[in-house]
Amino acid sequence: MAKYCFGIDIGGTTVKCGLFETDGTLLEKWEIPTRTEDSGSNILPDVGKTIQEKMKERGMKKSEVAGVGVGVPGPVRNNKLPYAVNLHWGEMDIAEILGGITGLKIKAGNDANVAALGEMWKGGAEGKQNVMVVTLGTGVGGGIIVDGHIVEGAHGAGGEIGHAHVEDAITDPCGCGNCGCLEQVASATGIVRLTREELKKKDSAETTIINPDAPIDAKVVFDAYKADDAVATRIVNRFGKYLGTTLAAYSAVVDPEVIVLGGGVSKAGDALVDIVSRYYRAVAFPACVETPIVLAKLGNDAGIYGSARLVLD
Amino acid sequence: MAKYCFGIDIGGTTVKCGLFETDGTLLEKWEIPTRTEDSGSNILPDVGKTIQEKMKERGMKKSEVAGVGVGVPGPVRNNKLPYAVNLHWGEMDIAEILGGITGLKIKAGNDANVAALGEMWKGGAEGKQNVMVVTLGTGVGGGIIVDGHIVEGAHGAGGEIGHAHVEDAITDPCGCGNCGCLEQVASATGIVRLTREELKKKDSAETTIINPDAPIDAKVVFDAYKADDAVATRIVNRFGKYLGTTLAAYSAVVDPEVIVLGGGVSKAGDALVDIVSRYYRAVAFPACVETPIVLAKLGNDAGIYGSARLVLD
Repeated sequence: MAKYCFGIDIGGTTVKCGLFETDGTLLEKWEIPTRTEDSGSNILPDVGKTIQEKMKERGMKKSEVAGVGVGVPGPVRNNKLPYAVNLHWGEMDIAEILGGITGLKIKAGNDANVAALGEMWKGGAEGKQNVMVVTLGTGVGGGIIVDGHIVEGAHGAGGEIGHAHVEDAITDPCGCGNCGCLEQVASATGIVRLTREELKKKDSAETTIINPDAPIDAKVVFDAYKADDAVATRIVNRFGKYLGTTLAAYSAVVDPEVIVLGGGVSKAGDALVDIVSRYYRAVAFPACVETPIVLAKLGNDAGIYGSARLVLD
Repeated sequence: MAKYCFGIDIGGTTVKCGLFETDGTLLEKWEIPTRTEDSGSNILPDVGKTIQEKMKERGMKKSEVAGVGVGVPGPVRNNKLPYAVNLHWGEMDIAEILGGITGLKIKAGNDANVAALGEMWKGGAEGKQNVMVVTLGTGVGGGIIVDGHIVEGAHGAGGEIGHAHVEDAITDPCGCGNCGCLEQVASATGIVRLTREELKKKDSAETTIINPDAPIDAKVVFDAYKADDAVATRIVNRFGKYLGTTLAAYSAVVDPEVIVLGGGVSKAGDALVDIVSRYYRAVAFPACVETPIVLAKLGNDAGIYGSARLVLD
């Protein structure tokens, strides 16, 4: 009976690696660089090599390893992905290549979806089977878990939470090419956008502790909000309304047991949960109105946890 | 090996019944009245009786019947439902009661979700496994199918497509109790609402073939739209924008292979598909932008097809 599994989270700069026991105990984690040169052709061989080295170092047999889960920044469907821009990859059959090198069972998933699975396994949604995870970072990503399984989607676009159209007034494009996506107003960079707008709109007589000449980020805005700054309160309320209203719409169709908020913006803590919850509960379908909204727990380790969990399916 | 299955669709007035071969061939359909008196306590016994009579009439053995699928107007989770207002039911364990009467395998689902499964099996989404079905009738309902299975949701609210909040300006409540739901602007009654608004707003010099003193329904409005009536064009565009934008948001998270439009409003045909597609494609996440939007095919039989399919799972 297999006792171990590996969770691999391939990012544009580093590959995070985790060795787990199959019950979810993290034994060891480490990183290797992501070599994106030569169309990223070294990435999977590098991953294969570090796994083989780790197994040798610990004297692990293949029969003891349930497999290797891999999270990648691209639209995965059935272990394959058509492209991964950040890795300089075109079409890639991850299971075939990495399986060929290691002789182990391989399962691949989209990095955001896999991180959601991690939060379900050992994070903010531990013990649940129906989960919506929302990652508020540079963008807005996430994953939907239904009955314990990732919703990959027919085109690998499952869980693309950030790309609901929420604002007609935005005319500059989102990273996806459309205009007015949730990501443009509810990510860390979206909060900066709302802040610039509010600073411009506000009456010149109104004072604020947000310094328009210093670097602005989500932390600056939430700190000002926690200090009852009126301008920050307007910004955070706009952010909360966009996000809470959209999450309520998603809840009406996938109806999770719990909604988990992660990513850099989630460092705002309870203030974030409170504002999102307020706008969520104002419009959520009655059956979903009490769905708990909680903070993610695994931080940057969500990807290795989730990819390890993926291969145990 | 079982050759037959029953599909039962319990509505507030009649129970639709279908006898199918397990390949999806409909052999016979019939209806019985829904007896809602005495807290609806006769409904499941009546269903059990009509099934037993049908089996006797046709000389069918229990071993030849895969089971009975049942669609009910309420939030079903794991064959149970906490209430079904239209049937005068409180908590009901459908599988236990109907299984006790018939000795057959029973599976229950929410009526709208089950109808979606029917469209996947033998309707507008035949051959697909990832489907979003939108039913535009008195309300806006539907169902989400992921990898061949209904998304029931943690509280039986999966596929409650009509309850995204889309309009802050609406202050009268939706059937769900909230204000500004998609259902209030994109159902048959929602189209009437939009029509009343546009007729009130329009310049008194502007003419329209919509007669404000005659009964208004979705057909009247779509007929006027097809005749290039300017007022009807504004109404249908508003309707299309609400619906297309919301479906695009849902696509970004569940990413179906196909979106199926059913219900009474779908009698508008290609004009409906075209207007919804236009607004959908304007804001859909790139991976989902080409997702086909098609008309439902099974009409009022979707429920019996889907409930029959449900029990074959």
